[in-house]
Amino acid sequence: MSQQESSILMVISAPSGAGKTTLAKALLGRYEDLRICVSHTTRPPRAGDVHGKDYYFVSHDKFDEMVANEAFLEWAHVHDQRYGTSHAELQKLRSEGYSVLFDVDYQGGISIMKAYPDAVSVFIQPPSLKELDQRIRNRATDSPEIINRRLENAKFEMTQYPHYQYAIINDDLESAIDAIESIYRAEKQKTARMESEIKTIVLG
Amino acid sequence: MSQQESSILMVISAPSGAGKTTLAKALLGRYEDLRICVSHTTRPPRAGDVHGKDYYFVSHDKFDEMVANEAFLEWAHVHDQRYGTSHAELQKLRSEGYSVLFDVDYQGGISIMKAYPDAVSVFIQPPSLKELDQRIRNRATDSPEIINRRLENAKFEMTQYPHYQYAIINDDLESAIDAIESIYRAEKQKTARMESEIKTIVLG
Repeated sequence: MSQQESSILMVISAPSGAGKTTLAKALLGRYEDLRICVSHTTRPPRAGDVHGKDYYFVSHDKFDEMVANEAFLEWAHVHDQRYGTSHAELQKLRSEGYSVLFDVDYQGGISIMKAYPDAVSVFIQPPSLKELDQRIRNRATDSPEIINRRLENAKFEMTQYPHYQYAIINDDLESAIDAIESIYRAEKQKTARMESEIKTIVLG
Repeated sequence: MSQQESSILMVISAPSGAGKTTLAKALLGRYEDLRICVSHTTRPPRAGDVHGKDYYFVSHDKFDEMVANEAFLEWAHVHDQRYGTSHAELQKLRSEGYSVLFDVDYQGGISIMKAYPDAVSVFIQPPSLKELDQRIRNRATDSPEIINRRLENAKFEMTQYPHYQYAIINDDLESAIDAIESIYRAEKQKTARMESEIKTIVLG
């Protein structure tokens, strides 16, 4: 098994407000061999967003062009904007030997799992509908109409967890970080990923 | 999913001298919801062995009787002695809601995996053939002939890892404990085991 084959592809998805990005950042901060696959998006940058780190921010025309050129492994509409994972970004990280984290919505997650059936998939759930409601309302600076639509979307997204191998209920951040870290750590121990190391030992 | 269905069955196997029992004890010490499934054996107790804790020590006649009564989920010959896992011991632990750890050789491990395809399986490897050799020689108080046979068996046992889902190379005890703990912790997050908890949230 080559270094590329032993690297892990991990998909993490969640409804808005479940704390997915916080968990992804915590995991990335603890494992130097793991890098995030930065997505392209047409949504405008928010305060603090860094191009090439949080997203590649591109125009609708540029996004259209990338779609036409089949540059995306997957892309989807979310809240009137488009988000996509480029083949080039993934291949760059894998060729450098990194494991790759995809922080994507369930539509993107399902597409990545189809393209890479060995991908490890994790779904994050909020502790309750009430808590989700509060988190989305507290965060949003948008109109009540947009907030309500976001809430309805989030409730639907919560039902998509059965597509994922692992599920974490984010009621306590430290415990949720511990859970996602354990999943990543455990996946490294999958026999297929240990194969070349073990063969060296067994064959003396 | 009932409490019994969400409990984990974990099989841990290794060649002699790989440190399996030390790892099993470390894991049991850290998780109160996990209990070891105590095996029956015809081998005589060694200094410090406790009946009902390390093994149920039984006579060859009693073991024969249990085999005849189909009391065993699996049993096997190892070094002229017999070892078996009783249905009664497993059912007792599951009915009490515990997850169950099986510390068994590869023959027992494979039988348990056949009976329980959802069982989580972990194989422990020594860091090298040389290290395995030293550990077995240092530990043994037996004749050179028996030691040599045990070494040959251990070398063969090392080749049985592909039957197992996870593999750990025990070159550093703390790191190996961390690995097995992550596997147990991650398995708790498998979506099927989280199902009833998540349904409660999603359905509000």
